[in-house]
Amino acid sequence: MTDQDYMRRAISLAERGRGWTSPNPLVGAVIVKDGRIIGEGYHEKCGELHAERNAIASLTEPAEGATIYVTLEPCCHYGKTPPCTEAIIENKIGRVVIGSRDPNPKVAGKGAKQLREAGIVVEEDFLRDECDRLNPIFFHYITTKMPYVILKYAMTADGKIATKTGASKWITGEEARALVQRMRHNYRGIMVGIGTVLADDPMLNVRFEGGRSPVRIICDSRLSIPEDCAIANSAHEYETIIACAAAQPEKRKRLEALGIEVLELPGEDGSVDLQALMRALGEKEIDSILLEGGGTLNDSMLRLGLVHEVKAFVAPKLFGGAGAKTPVEGSGIVLPEQAVKLSLEQVMTVGEDLLIEYKAGE
Amino acid sequence: MTDQDYMRRAISLAERGRGWTSPNPLVGAVIVKDGRIIGEGYHEKCGELHAERNAIASLTEPAEGATIYVTLEPCCHYGKTPPCTEAIIENKIGRVVIGSRDPNPKVAGKGAKQLREAGIVVEEDFLRDECDRLNPIFFHYITTKMPYVILKYAMTADGKIATKTGASKWITGEEARALVQRMRHNYRGIMVGIGTVLADDPMLNVRFEGGRSPVRIICDSRLSIPEDCAIANSAHEYETIIACAAAQPEKRKRLEALGIEVLELPGEDGSVDLQALMRALGEKEIDSILLEGGGTLNDSMLRLGLVHEVKAFVAPKLFGGAGAKTPVEGSGIVLPEQAVKLSLEQVMTVGEDLLIEYKAGE
Repeated sequence: MTDQDYMRRAISLAERGRGWTSPNPLVGAVIVKDGRIIGEGYHEKCGELHAERNAIASLTEPAEGATIYVTLEPCCHYGKTPPCTEAIIENKIGRVVIGSRDPNPKVAGKGAKQLREAGIVVEEDFLRDECDRLNPIFFHYITTKMPYVILKYAMTADGKIATKTGASKWITGEEARALVQRMRHNYRGIMVGIGTVLADDPMLNVRFEGGRSPVRIICDSRLSIPEDCAIANSAHEYETIIACAAAQPEKRKRLEALGIEVLELPGEDGSVDLQALMRALGEKEIDSILLEGGGTLNDSMLRLGLVHEVKAFVAPKLFGGAGAKTPVEGSGIVLPEQAVKLSLEQVMTVGEDLLIEYKAGE
Repeated sequence: MTDQDYMRRAISLAERGRGWTSPNPLVGAVIVKDGRIIGEGYHEKCGELHAERNAIASLTEPAEGATIYVTLEPCCHYGKTPPCTEAIIENKIGRVVIGSRDPNPKVAGKGAKQLREAGIVVEEDFLRDECDRLNPIFFHYITTKMPYVILKYAMTADGKIATKTGASKWITGEEARALVQRMRHNYRGIMVGIGTVLADDPMLNVRFEGGRSPVRIICDSRLSIPEDCAIANSAHEYETIIACAAAQPEKRKRLEALGIEVLELPGEDGSVDLQALMRALGEKEIDSILLEGGGTLNDSMLRLGLVHEVKAFVAPKLFGGAGAKTPVEGSGIVLPEQAVKLSLEQVMTVGEDLLIEYKAGE
């Protein structure tokens, strides 16, 4: 096995934490001595041990003189757990191969420096692109303190998210719907507009075993959510935040009694200040949001530059209908050159549907 | 080289006729003796020699005892050219390997039968699927006498074909637009609604060297086309048909003087009877139509079951806008289960855009 093989092993270990580490990054580590893996681990859950410490805890023999492959620069600060650099030094590991650099200002090169000062050989930027792909959320969140937003929608091949009468069950097939459940698990929050709540009365939870439901965030300028809707009725079970522009004090109290957190964030035009909402959610350690529409909210988020990825399911069918709803509506743009630009990441089949994944920006 | 290799060579020869053979099929033929290709050819253009005769004409030595690989059952009837079976028999070819069966009632097994009766070894259905993929248009047209229709549109990733103000230049990139030019060459007709003519004043021609422009077909119920539009001004150069529901005799005469053919095909609701139009175009040997919208015409064609393929370009950008136009509009369907069903054929990148290709039907 080569250095590449060990780092790829560390990457696949890191993946196992997906959905659980938020707002921490996904990290994997592999310890190798004389061509044998003598320890490995990953960051399993926020608040628990980091990948390096899990790898060290799993050692089958002393790590003296060994090499550790770690997908992200080891931390050197006291957070919820003590710094990993200390553990590496204490265990007399001789060489550290690092994938991603840690943009966290508390680390940012200081981890590598500390290791070198202890006489350890450090290699940085090893398979960096592959390692970086583990953590777009962390890199965004740690530097901006705002959530990384993934706009997700399911449309027909003619761009409709519902028929002209609003019927939208079901556009995509079973496999795509199962994958959406997986996406909900992967992100810390899920956001919809009040229109979606009124139209579909959704739960917005994760329904597969071992999944983690995201915090539900409803944009509801006038706080018009029905007090007997599925979201309101399940707010003691699933964390729920409603953002409004003007709260009626009595209704707010009743919603809070149901377990809902109400944020009053008035914008200039009577709707919710979405920038302020993103900052507020960032403060609550919500590092990532799956944005599931409708079209007006999607348009507002996009035009404020608050969306970082787009995941578009395309079903093999056509609805037609001049009035049928589309994934992004609102006021939209005037000239084609004002469009929100995307760059294609990948396209894949999911059952009978296609999933097209874009990053925002060119 | 194996039988498969020779037939695949015949298939790639057949491809060279694309855009020129209409309403005839694409056909290629390879003649092999003692492991050497001694002749090959393809159907180059409607009215000219068939593939088998072109292959025979290219022979470098006598074909006695040779094998001919031909992608479609040889014809046995006198059409614009004498039957190919005769040429095969006269040249004492010993074995005929056939890909597709010819559904033309004048051939349909009779070609193979005639060859066998002459003592020739005949193998049918050889790489039939690959050979069949050459000629969906011919198979449809020869059995229905109506054109095979390919709905083509270019939309943003949020399903828009224009911004809310109607601006649509350009949605896709250069490579996609060049491919659309190639598509126009490949099909015998191109059809749009009057709305597209009024909005864009298009030429609908082929602009690359060596390309063949399709017959332009405009659906214009009230014959409201401006007499000074680009289409009208170029009708002496490019064949042009306008289908209307009620022709004003004076305007009709003026349009005819410009070189336009006017078809009066009133439907029940004051619009053009599209079924009747397809039959009329079929009678004119228009075997294939690239349907380029707008949304109302696309919807009508789809709901009448007159569309056979969908080619959707998807650009990496988002327009938004509740009023922005989408590729299929009209009245559309009410319940998701009434959707026009498609089956995914392939998806590919074309420059920065995606091209998703579907067949109509499940």
